[in-house]
Amino acid sequence: MRIGLDIGGTKTDAVALDRTGREAARVRRTTGFGPDAVLAGAEAAVRAVVARAGAVLADVDAVGVGIPGVIDEESGDVRHAVNLGVAELALSTRLSGRLGLPVTVENDVKAAALGAYHLLGLSGSAALLNLGTGLAAGIVVDGRLWRGARGSAGEIGHIPIDPGGAACSCGQVGCLETVASGSAVTRLWQSTAALPAVELFDRADAGDGRAVEVRRTLVGGVAAAVRMLALSVDVETIIIGGGLSGLGERLAVPVAEALADWAVSSAFLASLELPSRVRMLPIGVSAAAVGAALLGAQTELV
Amino acid sequence: MRIGLDIGGTKTDAVALDRTGREAARVRRTTGFGPDAVLAGAEAAVRAVVARAGAVLADVDAVGVGIPGVIDEESGDVRHAVNLGVAELALSTRLSGRLGLPVTVENDVKAAALGAYHLLGLSGSAALLNLGTGLAAGIVVDGRLWRGARGSAGEIGHIPIDPGGAACSCGQVGCLETVASGSAVTRLWQSTAALPAVELFDRADAGDGRAVEVRRTLVGGVAAAVRMLALSVDVETIIIGGGLSGLGERLAVPVAEALADWAVSSAFLASLELPSRVRMLPIGVSAAAVGAALLGAQTELV
Repeated sequence: MRIGLDIGGTKTDAVALDRTGREAARVRRTTGFGPDAVLAGAEAAVRAVVARAGAVLADVDAVGVGIPGVIDEESGDVRHAVNLGVAELALSTRLSGRLGLPVTVENDVKAAALGAYHLLGLSGSAALLNLGTGLAAGIVVDGRLWRGARGSAGEIGHIPIDPGGAACSCGQVGCLETVASGSAVTRLWQSTAALPAVELFDRADAGDGRAVEVRRTLVGGVAAAVRMLALSVDVETIIIGGGLSGLGERLAVPVAEALADWAVSSAFLASLELPSRVRMLPIGVSAAAVGAALLGAQTELV
Repeated sequence: MRIGLDIGGTKTDAVALDRTGREAARVRRTTGFGPDAVLAGAEAAVRAVVARAGAVLADVDAVGVGIPGVIDEESGDVRHAVNLGVAELALSTRLSGRLGLPVTVENDVKAAALGAYHLLGLSGSAALLNLGTGLAAGIVVDGRLWRGARGSAGEIGHIPIDPGGAACSCGQVGCLETVASGSAVTRLWQSTAALPAVELFDRADAGDGRAVEVRRTLVGGVAAAVRMLALSVDVETIIIGGGLSGLGERLAVPVAEALADWAVSSAFLASLELPSRVRMLPIGVSAAAVGAALLGAQTELV
């Protein structure tokens, strides 16, 4: 049995996978704040999901953790997980010490890419285009994560695409993230609604001119991200995930339409067949937890 | 012995490499126009370079060809090599038939990427950013070409970076190629000089305000291409090649300066250490011919 955790800013999801890669149990807990609370919460989530699967720790082969921030690939240390109140945490070493099990740690978007690839039954190459607060893509080639030379493969959110665009949190101007992310929605559609993106799409559907314009900007940004992945790493499949993917077909359909529109005036773009290469991450699955469980076990299970 | 050809719009370069990967001989011939002339010229170039190496065809293990256009990876057929007057040519099959040797055909930029990687003695990952008439990058990972799912990995020239930019030949607007390529120089600096880019840089050095501005646009476009490769495929080394790389340090120095300037206002960009990751392709070598010779022999020689 393998355990995967997805430690998010508010919730921690845990899944237990059996030896064939099927989900045997899952639990969800509130994430604590600060390194000690995050560590204790991770340990508790592992113990809870193992118990729910009717197993004991001795049945577990390995634990994988997906977490925001910068991960040291060798040590499994986490840095700059700002939303979790973690400046630095030796997560792999300390969680492994508490559980007596091997623990692999990976950036949450990269873990989710691996999980999405597995959940969708893909082969070849794919990218998870994660539309969270920020924008980043995790890349999987032949069932394995592709990190690049310095771990910044797929960091397309910080590629500028408009010299006249908005200032980005990274210090540059007009980055893709400023028009295709949760923070882009927050900036362009100031709202007190619980789900600003849903309100935006509802208003646009109702014919609100300003909402239609903001939605067009957002959809165009997502379509530009798809095109950028196809013309740089050239993955076969681009999976849209992250918080905004909860919009489902309401986002997928206009993104595919934008890509098809662009292809009308460019035979080159048309030859890439982009609309047919976009998939949505299924709603209600924790791709990052599943991907975390698969870390280090990719040849066995995928 | 392995033979590599680089069939360009005006010249065909041929090299012979010995079993250790060292150059044993080279020849240069004028390229013919149309499929039959291209094929006959390729055959003649192979025979000439073998003779110059003091060898016979029976000493040759394999022939590789780098050629512009779209290459069918399986058949070795060439399509859309417009500058050569070739709509379609079964180059691999026909050249192999004439020589009695195995012939592998690859796009010239991809072949040049492999050759540059070998000539610079690199390891890990690298991209050749080819600033020819157009802009495209060839990508090498661990000594092997990375083509992507559909052969469009590294086609960053057709990623739009400015909604207010110029129309691109591909049918889109504001593509990177419109500011960072030989055709960008032609458009921005209309000139009758034999080497418009050299004239542009000379005039900019002499203080011509318009030339300074065009040079700044070009240098910024090349720096943007470097950043884009680092944030998408994340290769360790970016090698600047193609016709414009003949400018040497006159181009390399301001590109590194632009990257360093951007890093001042972005700690994120600074962390990528881009200026130190840029190399220039040495002048006077036919990287595409050397790379073509290495096609299919990468595990032996690199």
